[in-house]
Amino acid sequence: MLSHTTHPGNIGAAARAMKTMGLRHLYLINPRHFPDPQADAMAAGADDVLRDAVVCGSIDEALYGVVFTVAMTARLRDISLEVKTPRDAMPTLLQQAAAQPVALLFGTEMSGLTNEEMGKAQLLAHIPANPDFSSLNLAAAVQVMAYELSVAAQNFTPSAQAFIPASHEQLEGFYAHLEKTLHEIGFFTTQNPARMMQRLRRLYARARLEQEEINILRGILSVTTEYNARLKSRYQEEHRNVSEH
Amino acid sequence: MLSHTTHPGNIGAAARAMKTMGLRHLYLINPRHFPDPQADAMAAGADDVLRDAVVCGSIDEALYGVVFTVAMTARLRDISLEVKTPRDAMPTLLQQAAAQPVALLFGTEMSGLTNEEMGKAQLLAHIPANPDFSSLNLAAAVQVMAYELSVAAQNFTPSAQAFIPASHEQLEGFYAHLEKTLHEIGFFTTQNPARMMQRLRRLYARARLEQEEINILRGILSVTTEYNARLKSRYQEEHRNVSEH
Repeated sequence: MLSHTTHPGNIGAAARAMKTMGLRHLYLINPRHFPDPQADAMAAGADDVLRDAVVCGSIDEALYGVVFTVAMTARLRDISLEVKTPRDAMPTLLQQAAAQPVALLFGTEMSGLTNEEMGKAQLLAHIPANPDFSSLNLAAAVQVMAYELSVAAQNFTPSAQAFIPASHEQLEGFYAHLEKTLHEIGFFTTQNPARMMQRLRRLYARARLEQEEINILRGILSVTTEYNARLKSRYQEEHRNVSEH
Repeated sequence: MLSHTTHPGNIGAAARAMKTMGLRHLYLINPRHFPDPQADAMAAGADDVLRDAVVCGSIDEALYGVVFTVAMTARLRDISLEVKTPRDAMPTLLQQAAAQPVALLFGTEMSGLTNEEMGKAQLLAHIPANPDFSSLNLAAAVQVMAYELSVAAQNFTPSAQAFIPASHEQLEGFYAHLEKTLHEIGFFTTQNPARMMQRLRRLYARARLEQEEINILRGILSVTTEYNARLKSRYQEEHRNVSEH
């Protein structure tokens, strides 16, 4: 998945890089220009990958149904989500891919992925590069990741999956529920909501939530709200009683 | 080292790929266009690598002083030289690089390296790719190899080198001497010289000749020539004697 790609030539070159390593499913999140003759020219035979590319209006639309997302980052500072090398990330990705759709997520040419986009991933991957010149071309990064995935897949046998991982939309549903609940109970009066949600996303990304756990956590949230609502109404009740006295 | 590159944009993109992985020494063997604005544009900050690039008129000029060359091939058929994956090739390359210059050799965009060029390498490397679409872009192949080299270099400690490997020009001097000698002794009357020399190159490439061994082998060739010359003159002598009778 390529998010907000600026140069259509990079989309074509990325499609070519994918196809050389046997990958087919390209998702484009708000590309600046697509379809585009430059993309076709750079695809050089991977026109089937371009033709079948899915253009999405949002990252949530692109990640619908996905259970495991590896997001690329060129930065190593300021990140508390788990960061792995491409080589170390692949076994986990392949293990998840054995049962359900997974995704590799690449940001824009200039600035990469936003914090919000990275917050939707379960794992970050960083291609180790020259500290003085770390700017891999987008298609070059796709080539390295597709190559690592292909090499890792040669020798991979999935182990039996002990649980059903939560899908992207189940996770997002939970995060929305969590944020709404934290608002309702007044937790955000002393906290920056965006920052706190980012930290909570990182925590749960590390945990790799199962579907069943999502149900449990949302159950807790529902009860919290109800309890809170009961508390509030009882308080109002008592308050009314007091004033009536 | 890039041999006979057609598109200058690929030279720039290759320079960028190299620099992201900490590589600096780019050699260009008869590039079609260089320097070129397209190369500058695609280098995107790796202009120092382009500026310092060495343009050579022949592969022998480029490989002068090099003791170990890994040549890239997209084909796996028809090759009897040792072919390794990029990952398997790197420890050997790094071991050699600890003492002496080594090279990674890439062919043209359309057809790769010629058999003659591959004959000058000690090892072939093949990037495993989709059998139905194996055409990696030149710069993408450079990126993958530079990445593998960089990752391998992180954890590499050279073991003590037991011998001094022969340099490219010492090997070429030996091959030329061998071919000349085989002509002199009449070996090629029943053999295709080019084909036979290719097979012999493969044999000696596998052997990884030391400098001292080159001296021994060339010594044998010299003695062979002298012996042959003595035989010939004795034959001519006897023939003259016969005709004088």
